[in-house]
Amino acid sequence: MSDYNAPIDEMLFVMEEVAGLGDLVQMERFGELSPELVAAVLEEAGKLAGGVVAPLNRQGDVEGARLENGVVRTPTGFREAYRQFVEGGWNGVPFPVEHGGQGLPWLVSTALSEMWASANLSFSLCPLLTQGAIDLLQAHGSEAQKEMFLPRMISGEWTGTMNLTEPQAGSDVGALRTRAERNGDHYLIRGQKIFITYGEHDFTDNIIHMVLARTPDAPPGIRGISLFVVPKVLVESDGRLGARNDVRVASLEHKLGIHASPTCVMSYGDDTGAVGYLIGEEGRGIEYMFTMMNNARLGVGLEGVAIAERAYQQAVAFARERIQGRDALSGDEAPVPIIRHPDVRRMLLSIRADTEATRALAYYVAAAMDRARGAQSDVERQRWQQRVDLLIPVVKAFSTDVGVDAASTALQVHGGMGFIEETGAAQHYRDARIAPIYEGTNGIQALDLLGRKTLRDKGAALQALIAEIEVDASAGIGSGNPHIRTIHERLGEAATALARAGRSLIERRQGADVLAGATPFLRLVGLATTGWLLGRGAVAAARLLDEGGDKQALFEAKLQTARFYAEQRLVMAEPLSRVVADAGATVADFAEEYF
Amino acid sequence: MSDYNAPIDEMLFVMEEVAGLGDLVQMERFGELSPELVAAVLEEAGKLAGGVVAPLNRQGDVEGARLENGVVRTPTGFREAYRQFVEGGWNGVPFPVEHGGQGLPWLVSTALSEMWASANLSFSLCPLLTQGAIDLLQAHGSEAQKEMFLPRMISGEWTGTMNLTEPQAGSDVGALRTRAERNGDHYLIRGQKIFITYGEHDFTDNIIHMVLARTPDAPPGIRGISLFVVPKVLVESDGRLGARNDVRVASLEHKLGIHASPTCVMSYGDDTGAVGYLIGEEGRGIEYMFTMMNNARLGVGLEGVAIAERAYQQAVAFARERIQGRDALSGDEAPVPIIRHPDVRRMLLSIRADTEATRALAYYVAAAMDRARGAQSDVERQRWQQRVDLLIPVVKAFSTDVGVDAASTALQVHGGMGFIEETGAAQHYRDARIAPIYEGTNGIQALDLLGRKTLRDKGAALQALIAEIEVDASAGIGSGNPHIRTIHERLGEAATALARAGRSLIERRQGADVLAGATPFLRLVGLATTGWLLGRGAVAAARLLDEGGDKQALFEAKLQTARFYAEQRLVMAEPLSRVVADAGATVADFAEEYF
Repeated sequence: MSDYNAPIDEMLFVMEEVAGLGDLVQMERFGELSPELVAAVLEEAGKLAGGVVAPLNRQGDVEGARLENGVVRTPTGFREAYRQFVEGGWNGVPFPVEHGGQGLPWLVSTALSEMWASANLSFSLCPLLTQGAIDLLQAHGSEAQKEMFLPRMISGEWTGTMNLTEPQAGSDVGALRTRAERNGDHYLIRGQKIFITYGEHDFTDNIIHMVLARTPDAPPGIRGISLFVVPKVLVESDGRLGARNDVRVASLEHKLGIHASPTCVMSYGDDTGAVGYLIGEEGRGIEYMFTMMNNARLGVGLEGVAIAERAYQQAVAFARERIQGRDALSGDEAPVPIIRHPDVRRMLLSIRADTEATRALAYYVAAAMDRARGAQSDVERQRWQQRVDLLIPVVKAFSTDVGVDAASTALQVHGGMGFIEETGAAQHYRDARIAPIYEGTNGIQALDLLGRKTLRDKGAALQALIAEIEVDASAGIGSGNPHIRTIHERLGEAATALARAGRSLIERRQGADVLAGATPFLRLVGLATTGWLLGRGAVAAARLLDEGGDKQALFEAKLQTARFYAEQRLVMAEPLSRVVADAGATVADFAEEYF
Repeated sequence: MSDYNAPIDEMLFVMEEVAGLGDLVQMERFGELSPELVAAVLEEAGKLAGGVVAPLNRQGDVEGARLENGVVRTPTGFREAYRQFVEGGWNGVPFPVEHGGQGLPWLVSTALSEMWASANLSFSLCPLLTQGAIDLLQAHGSEAQKEMFLPRMISGEWTGTMNLTEPQAGSDVGALRTRAERNGDHYLIRGQKIFITYGEHDFTDNIIHMVLARTPDAPPGIRGISLFVVPKVLVESDGRLGARNDVRVASLEHKLGIHASPTCVMSYGDDTGAVGYLIGEEGRGIEYMFTMMNNARLGVGLEGVAIAERAYQQAVAFARERIQGRDALSGDEAPVPIIRHPDVRRMLLSIRADTEATRALAYYVAAAMDRARGAQSDVERQRWQQRVDLLIPVVKAFSTDVGVDAASTALQVHGGMGFIEETGAAQHYRDARIAPIYEGTNGIQALDLLGRKTLRDKGAALQALIAEIEVDASAGIGSGNPHIRTIHERLGEAATALARAGRSLIERRQGADVLAGATPFLRLVGLATTGWLLGRGAVAAARLLDEGGDKQALFEAKLQTARFYAEQRLVMAEPLSRVVADAGATVADFAEEYF
């Protein structure tokens, strides 16, 4: 028995009823795609995720990745699981058919990514980073570079990494010091990078590093940074592997979680200089990075959803099995499984509702990416791209905060056993904690949402979102279904609160008091948007219930979960708008020496 | 340099201005006690905590406690630190002078307990459990038992443990199966206990186990349970140590955190039966346990405060040192310490405010225990005891949830470094997670607050608290100081919300929908009460600011932190009252098979 079962019915429901899979399959670019085919793909992936990848999760945590004589050994079974992953063609799902990919929508690959991350977060990071490197090469690489690297990266035969961070350059990427000097048709890279996920491993023969570095005479700050592709093993013109490049793993980090994922300190050019090939033009490295940031941030946001789902499944299984205490309501003397206790059910339903909420958000944004890409007009494209840009920081931060909370609550469901490592709940609590940090801390996401996405366009993108929410809220309030009515009453309040908070920020525009409101503002956008999307799902569920059909339990559960979310979570929108308005005063006034 | 400095000014402020140390020192039982003496005691303890105990925290986490050939080895330095702790007389602080204790108020020992737990949570658990065992013996032991065990337990020469949990008996203690058969002047105990903190260690020659067990022919459930004292080494009538008792540690748990604290599986009576002495009468074991539960739960609640304080200090130190990014407001190009960034300041101020809030609550309740004990009349005693009983579950659950959140936020302040174990922030995140679980899970606390403390007296104790809050809120709203006014406006709203939630629960009285509201109700009581006590501190700070004096920065910071808490936290009271009212419907309706 696997301890992870991909929630395929729920995934399909969200794809079809919330994210609009029906619209996507109509797009010419997706050819013969149909909801039935998507369901079949999910079924197949679910088998690999639940049957092969998930069972390695606990042992991977215990063994961890190890560095031995310059070689990184991944835990027992990981290499073989990766081989199966590649053989199944799973690495190429979202990439164009002309480069050997499957050409499926981001929406579909997003659901699959959720599965890999639920099954084994450490394992899933390798394809996630490869995907980022592929995106960069696809968008900005030369034809020769694409030809040299893309096919084998898309197949998964080679993996990719992203090299941004240095000890003095974390959130402030512009402070990086790694140098790149031109040397004929290539550059020689010298410097140290830290926190490089799967910077070295034993899955494949080659690893393709995407490295940010500074050219001589380049201006300081981000305008002096260029992007290079640096293969671990040089590739000959005929495609065969050649000499080892001057890049090596210096050490592995000892981390709180994701132990099986090797987090490397990478040394470039200790000896002769690492051979790197410039991508695009000098000085535009950060700009290129930004073009793939939306994908990467969606991927990390999804990790929050994924770990919440995994933690939920484990907590439910425990709560069904653990016998403790009596039924408080029936007065019966026989001990019962703890899932009967209302406080335990409240915890489980909280995790479930938060998971469904963030899944709806992530899938909606993934579909919006597909819609922007496949739009028939500029206006339509811009409209969807604006929505994507607005919500990407929300997916990343809101969902990963949810992941941490969910893992913590799931651990709590286990009582004392939750604190014992063998139970496995603690691993989720440790693993989940990375997601609010990497790929731009959640604080950075909040500043992105506030500054670049809200203040810069004077709230236009935000207002467009609120307007859509308000239309749906008004419609829902008129429903004859009491669940739908309640959900949309709360949603209407949330939309009003969000509009008020947005106005308060836009009117003030700058100052420490505005910036201090960034994080609560992001939370508020996240609440209102997830509440809206769960409401959309609830309306669909009510309709499907009326129509009959064979998934009545799913639809009933969707309705009730959405109502729970509205009553327990959406009501926090109003005070959050006050927090946004008031936050700044004390934060700005509190003298630095008082801390 | 120590990485923990006991916040003595803040502690004294809370003791004097919030908890009422001035009233306590007037009590006859505390003799010559004065605020100056208390300050001196805190200074002395702070040296041991910061200089000796705190520096062992990280190494203790790495080494962990180890079981070797039936002997538990604590990590390097722990044994020596415990020796210093005992020699300083710190173990006996709250116990009566006639048994060799220092006879200081609970309020003072609470501040000291906070220090030990901040310095090293794993270390602090040994005295905490000893204290529980002492309380039991003091209250219910025979004179002979007291004479045999108390002096050396109060001195710390011997330690104590609490043995309740068995694999099938966690929250449901009544399900325990350990047996005790009469055998002359003693009983023979046979059974297995789990999760026994410091069940075995190398600090002392003897360990005094307090063990719950079932006598033959006893009725099922909690009425069949008796309490026994079971020394590791038998004590001869002349006080010398005699034969080894038939009790041994079977294994140590592999835990998420508090690695240095040995969490033991204990085997009683594998061979001839462990010699145990009945405490009080048969069948009253659970009743006796309850008499010391308030102390134990206060102690665990305090762990939340303590870990939040420790995590805060570490995050502030990091934020002052870590240079990253530019000042968003000045436009200056030079990189700045991250403490300048408003979102980082918001995080730090959040932890600080939550820490001060829960400290105020814990100290207030500790002083209330002293007031109940030293009351001049029955009416006064009952009034304070009622307040203690009402708030103990709140101290335990609200503060430990805060501890987890604070540790998580402090980790986030560190960015990528927070996820690296060597940084130390991750240890707090792991250690903090036990506190919401043990000594009655936070869900159990919420049910205690709702059932025994609120519904049983039809809200009388709650109403008395709300009335006091309302009086202070009304007075504060009339203040000329804008901080005080704002704080008390929000407090007034919170009191109204709390009263509404209380009424909603009392009117409905029973059912799954009422029980499902227990946890949000506890959170609401916690919010309103902490907001009230911070408001009391703010009023005092404003007065002291007007009076001048040499701690202006402390008073100014207290005022602003209280305002931050009112604006950022207290505003959540109103929606929480809606959550309490609405929670139940969906929780109760959601079919078990839907999970």
